[in-house]
Amino acid sequence: MGIYDEPHLQRGPANHAPLTPLSFLVRAAAVYPDKPAMIHGERLFTYAELLERCRRLASALRRRGIGQGDTVSVMAPNVPAMLEAHYGISMAGAVLNALNYRLDAKTIAFIFGHAETKLLITDREFSPTIKEALALAARKPIVVDIDDPLFEGGEKLGELDYEAFLATGDPADEWAMPDDEWQACSLNYTSGTTGNPKGVVYHHRGAFLNAVGDVMYFGLSSHAVYLWTLPMFHCNGWCYTWAVTAACGTHVCLRRIDPALIFALIERHGVTHLCGAPIVLNLLAHAPDSAKRRLDHPVKMMTGGAAPPSTIIANMERLGFTVAHGYGLTESYGPAMLCFEQDDWAALSLAERTALMARQGMEVATLAGARVVDPVSLRDVPADGAAIGEIVLRANTVMKGYLKNSAATEEAFAGGWFHTGDLAVRHANGYIEIKDRAKDIIISGGENVSSLEVEEALYKHPAVMEAAVVAQPDDKWGECPCAFVALKPGATATADDIVAFCRANLAHFKVPRAVVFGALPKTSTGKIQKYLLREQAKSLAP
Amino acid sequence: MGIYDEPHLQRGPANHAPLTPLSFLVRAAAVYPDKPAMIHGERLFTYAELLERCRRLASALRRRGIGQGDTVSVMAPNVPAMLEAHYGISMAGAVLNALNYRLDAKTIAFIFGHAETKLLITDREFSPTIKEALALAARKPIVVDIDDPLFEGGEKLGELDYEAFLATGDPADEWAMPDDEWQACSLNYTSGTTGNPKGVVYHHRGAFLNAVGDVMYFGLSSHAVYLWTLPMFHCNGWCYTWAVTAACGTHVCLRRIDPALIFALIERHGVTHLCGAPIVLNLLAHAPDSAKRRLDHPVKMMTGGAAPPSTIIANMERLGFTVAHGYGLTESYGPAMLCFEQDDWAALSLAERTALMARQGMEVATLAGARVVDPVSLRDVPADGAAIGEIVLRANTVMKGYLKNSAATEEAFAGGWFHTGDLAVRHANGYIEIKDRAKDIIISGGENVSSLEVEEALYKHPAVMEAAVVAQPDDKWGECPCAFVALKPGATATADDIVAFCRANLAHFKVPRAVVFGALPKTSTGKIQKYLLREQAKSLAP
Repeated sequence: MGIYDEPHLQRGPANHAPLTPLSFLVRAAAVYPDKPAMIHGERLFTYAELLERCRRLASALRRRGIGQGDTVSVMAPNVPAMLEAHYGISMAGAVLNALNYRLDAKTIAFIFGHAETKLLITDREFSPTIKEALALAARKPIVVDIDDPLFEGGEKLGELDYEAFLATGDPADEWAMPDDEWQACSLNYTSGTTGNPKGVVYHHRGAFLNAVGDVMYFGLSSHAVYLWTLPMFHCNGWCYTWAVTAACGTHVCLRRIDPALIFALIERHGVTHLCGAPIVLNLLAHAPDSAKRRLDHPVKMMTGGAAPPSTIIANMERLGFTVAHGYGLTESYGPAMLCFEQDDWAALSLAERTALMARQGMEVATLAGARVVDPVSLRDVPADGAAIGEIVLRANTVMKGYLKNSAATEEAFAGGWFHTGDLAVRHANGYIEIKDRAKDIIISGGENVSSLEVEEALYKHPAVMEAAVVAQPDDKWGECPCAFVALKPGATATADDIVAFCRANLAHFKVPRAVVFGALPKTSTGKIQKYLLREQAKSLAP
Repeated sequence: MGIYDEPHLQRGPANHAPLTPLSFLVRAAAVYPDKPAMIHGERLFTYAELLERCRRLASALRRRGIGQGDTVSVMAPNVPAMLEAHYGISMAGAVLNALNYRLDAKTIAFIFGHAETKLLITDREFSPTIKEALALAARKPIVVDIDDPLFEGGEKLGELDYEAFLATGDPADEWAMPDDEWQACSLNYTSGTTGNPKGVVYHHRGAFLNAVGDVMYFGLSSHAVYLWTLPMFHCNGWCYTWAVTAACGTHVCLRRIDPALIFALIERHGVTHLCGAPIVLNLLAHAPDSAKRRLDHPVKMMTGGAAPPSTIIANMERLGFTVAHGYGLTESYGPAMLCFEQDDWAALSLAERTALMARQGMEVATLAGARVVDPVSLRDVPADGAAIGEIVLRANTVMKGYLKNSAATEEAFAGGWFHTGDLAVRHANGYIEIKDRAKDIIISGGENVSSLEVEEALYKHPAVMEAAVVAQPDDKWGECPCAFVALKPGATATADDIVAFCRANLAHFKVPRAVVFGALPKTSTGKIQKYLLREQAKSLAP
């Protein structure tokens, strides 16, 4: 034993405390008790009030016998109860399971059973789905309704509403920080395009660290006003549920993506930061002029969840937003990499710069490593911008594993790295660029076609608002690209126009053989549901 | 065992990596290889070069047989070798012991023995002291000389100079991140006004976390240009040695506090951030007009290490600096609390606002807790701004303990909290304000007199540049305040003037009985050496 490892130098209560995002709220309420913590419609809650409500929630749960290791599910848009759930549930020692509100009743019933949900907090808006799910579920959780005056309709399904439930708790009740930073704090089900979804388990250490990374890279300070355009159920809002509180900024709740409302809230509350999938940027960029407002202060927007077409970044910059682009997955607590802008990019044309910004980039400081590798040998692909490999990650901000699924966990962690399933190249400057999800790649005549590359070309067509490309079975080539296109309001284009445009901009084997017009099906997080398009393309195959 | 604790959800290489500041450098070199990492005089090193040099240093150390748990001491001002030591030594598994270059030879000889220093890297500037220390030391470390062209004089004492030593290493040699984040990374001796200094041991976890806190609160980004006005040996430069690299900013080295040079470097390199004890602020504020430059861009300055008199904050603001005030100790890796500005302070007068800013404030998010307590019962004092207690801290950013000193460690950690020895009050808004070091309080006629309060009054006198107040033994009152005052250049004031001014601004029992004029003795970190003044006051007692 060396001199630095003597027994008196070991950890104890004075020099070791489990990392947990709960500490952010306690501290914010101590430093800025009277500061606006959370705004919802005309209501404003200070940090002292937010802490009190979270302590009430923890107490109410404990008094119902819910504690250590129990699951509490929440089905709600970005309302105060959802934010409070991120603290109050952990304060009770329980695990928050924020549900994707676009899921069907059958899947939600599966989750209630799989997660062993003891209590459900649910918003009236989703009562039809939840009612059906509860009827299907073998285990019936206690049901608490969120009775939000900002939503009309739906019905209450439970014994009491959320405010009444809070009233059953006492904010003076004792609660404890987790004993171990490896303790689970949340459970997020992947959208699972096939089969049952997988339950991704987060721990306090990872939540703390990813939130701190969010603060560092999004420049959050106590002056930040964060608008909740990203669903909080999505990787716990990319951990901004915790990060905004860590910075002692203000959360502005938002029930739905409504461009007119978003512009109005940015103006009214002086919003400085917001996040969203590329589709949200697209909706803002293409909002009618009557909905748009001139930004009178700097507004930063983080996008991710899908590679943002460079035209979307350009459109947002024209509106005055500063756009940053991150990459991550549910399994990585959201943001794991960022496309860090290099100083010399400022001299590039907008098109060149936004093309670089659309890359996924490099790891943040809270990530231990990101590589592009042969998924079997785990050897790095050459950094030549051409060789395709799989992105693998290693980090304290990678999940504990999949709940009750050791086989999927072992597969995901094969070789000591988390396998993302995203296919990418590494450029000479080290930046990683996704070429496709493993399952989205199109193999035409033996050649790999990146659906993203074809989509990028389609987005450059002046009439195209949104585009998605999937494989269509083809007797001769095996697969061919099939394009689904939504046009801008008032714009017109024929399939021939689109194909001709692609021919002028892509290698011929990458040009879509078919072009289908219409709105694109999307998940609640704005991801285009390619599996639905794939089925449609198959049914349309010649 | 609950569902969240099943064996497949435990830590493994994919989802757990020891926290370490070494990761910051590796990442900075990957993301910004060509960015200026470190500037020294006319030399500029990119992040790729800095990483290569640190890898060389690690390799050179390993090839000399220095590794896991060995101590490497460094005696140098803020030069490249000192910054590189913060990475290269840890990369070899060894522990950095950055020496206070104002220490005497005897104390340094003691440290060599106590720390079991295997190798010493030393700058020519300090060769007289080091030569003497080496002669006194029972153990002789290998000596490597820093032969900095920016310093003339001194002599080389060792076998080879630092650049030649680096050349013995190979940057391609393997090195490893620490296996355990609890592993020691640095050793900082307290200045120890009496007896031998104590060796404060830091670990990788704490260094990572405090650096991340520095980034969050000082607003460091990749555009930050950090000027090294704070000694790197002082709590590893309050962990900015690691934080600036975490942000991928630029370190600007500085051998000595020279106001003209500081203003010139701020202008030349576009310095955005710097730190220093209040004395450094004072030197800048009172620099001759010929040395001062107009700041043409925002510059943030963090001060701490001693409570900054409010007049000093006001003077710096007049020069255009934004001043933030933090509190910490060697045992807390430097910054542990910050005086967070509240929104409503903006409406206050400069005097009112700077008086509030001079408080020590509240804990940062990387601290688990800060309290003001009765040191025995550990009960909180009332938050009334009057009741005095001791500041105690609990954090991952509290030291492992004191090297080879279990008794002092146990005493410091009594009751599971780190006892700072600082006496403070808690105000109604939660902010902590230091009233004195436990040993600096003056007890006059049974009343406690805060030396800081008397100093604060003295600093308001228009002729006073610096002031320090200590206890003078008194037959009647037990102790009386004795003031030591340095006047501004060209200013005049008599002892009677000063006493009359204090009478107009303080309770009479707090007014100094004696006023001594002259320069004040200081430590290398700018702390006034009160123990010397105390001896002087004693010798002057009537």
